[in-house]
Amino acid sequence: VSDPDLSRLSLNQATTQNSGMVATIEGCARAEIGWIGVWRDKLLELGPVETARRLRSAGIRASSLCRGGFFPAATEAERQSRIDDNRRAVDEAAEIGAPVLVLVSGPPFDRDIDLARQQVEDGIRALLPYAEERGVRLAIEPLHPMFAGDRSVVVTLGQANALASRLGSASVGVAVDVYHVWWDPDVYAEIARAAGSIVGFHVSDWLAPPPHHLLGRGVMGDGLIELRRLREAVDAAGYSGPIEVEIFNQRVWDTPPEEVLALVKERYLAWC
Amino acid sequence: VSDPDLSRLSLNQATTQNSGMVATIEGCARAEIGWIGVWRDKLLELGPVETARRLRSAGIRASSLCRGGFFPAATEAERQSRIDDNRRAVDEAAEIGAPVLVLVSGPPFDRDIDLARQQVEDGIRALLPYAEERGVRLAIEPLHPMFAGDRSVVVTLGQANALASRLGSASVGVAVDVYHVWWDPDVYAEIARAAGSIVGFHVSDWLAPPPHHLLGRGVMGDGLIELRRLREAVDAAGYSGPIEVEIFNQRVWDTPPEEVLALVKERYLAWC
Repeated sequence: VSDPDLSRLSLNQATTQNSGMVATIEGCARAEIGWIGVWRDKLLELGPVETARRLRSAGIRASSLCRGGFFPAATEAERQSRIDDNRRAVDEAAEIGAPVLVLVSGPPFDRDIDLARQQVEDGIRALLPYAEERGVRLAIEPLHPMFAGDRSVVVTLGQANALASRLGSASVGVAVDVYHVWWDPDVYAEIARAAGSIVGFHVSDWLAPPPHHLLGRGVMGDGLIELRRLREAVDAAGYSGPIEVEIFNQRVWDTPPEEVLALVKERYLAWC
Repeated sequence: VSDPDLSRLSLNQATTQNSGMVATIEGCARAEIGWIGVWRDKLLELGPVETARRLRSAGIRASSLCRGGFFPAATEAERQSRIDDNRRAVDEAAEIGAPVLVLVSGPPFDRDIDLARQQVEDGIRALLPYAEERGVRLAIEPLHPMFAGDRSVVVTLGQANALASRLGSASVGVAVDVYHVWWDPDVYAEIARAAGSIVGFHVSDWLAPPPHHLLGRGVMGDGLIELRRLREAVDAAGYSGPIEVEIFNQRVWDTPPEEVLALVKERYLAWC
């Protein structure tokens, strides 16, 4: 058992949803948090180029850009427009210096979940050459199966590993988010199998039962997830990058961001 | 593709939560539904013996008794009291002629999910001789991973199959509920693997997103689940028993039960 390194702590902007880009950069600088997990909508405030400049001058790096994906669609034209949007996301990731674009695969557009899964694979394959050119790695993030109908047909780390393996590029890996994978009887075997291709690690906690479908995540230590065990497994699989704290929770959003950042640091050290 | 046999339709009492036992038996008799999936709390109205008599005289059979389980607990005394309660559930199943007791394994009592899973296995093993004596089969029902923290640490059919296989008794099998397993990339492989040990099949539908953690199930045809494909897979694995319609949904509960039964029959024929 080893304490986590504070230099790996990253604030994913989903944790402080009500703060804009400038406020988040200033807040993290004051709290001495060296990484931010950036969301695309937050880039609208300053644009990617100015955001990158502000990050640099604050000594903060983007750990990832959230998010691309959402590949399945009923028509070829719509699927192509999703891929085009993912290319813009790759551009934005490159512009802000984020090494990773997180992919949430998207839900099925009707009752054919196998077809949706095939469209996810086809979509990532179509996006991949562009990501390779721009030096951005794609992170396939399996989401909790409770999101299978509205967010992601990729729902297990085993499925994400198999998909990454079939795509067979150093520019595709997996993101491990404890909230999405903690329930899985195979999670430790699949983390080990992902050795060398883990490109993101996200933490929060599981409240039982979740108080809300989307906004029900807990702060680390408030729930049931074996956070340290999972973090050490991810470390043992060779991942030494930033650890993003990503807490979708209305009560956290309603708390002053300085308090949230202080709590996040404290709980990260105590539980991760 | 084959239409489902109406003689296999069973009304699980969770679908008509506001009706008591007498009303449910009378309603099913009028609607010519030959099976009822009985809940333990509904037995309090008449007691098991009188319930059995009323079922017989209406020409209706109990497809299963819901539910036993909830094995993990912090102390040996509490775990023993859970097993004792499960023995009473076995008695009740035998008394009403239900061939199957459905087991919902229970949540972890702290952050150690592996320990909770071990306690589930130990609990079923302790219960098994009593079930064998009374001629009641135990159905391990994997629940959707969204219930891992509050209802069941058994969350995949693969896990239930492995558990049933380790227990190695003709008196232990698995229950396949489409709501709990539809998202699983391995579901068809695991249904095939369960051949010969499927002792229950439950249907409803997945609304995206679910409108409520517990009471958000859809009526067949209103959601994303490939119901007929799953039913045919379960049939192909040798299951020819009753098909329970189990819809936890507040709006369904607020609908007059006669209307619910008519809708259930119509949707069962159209979608299952």
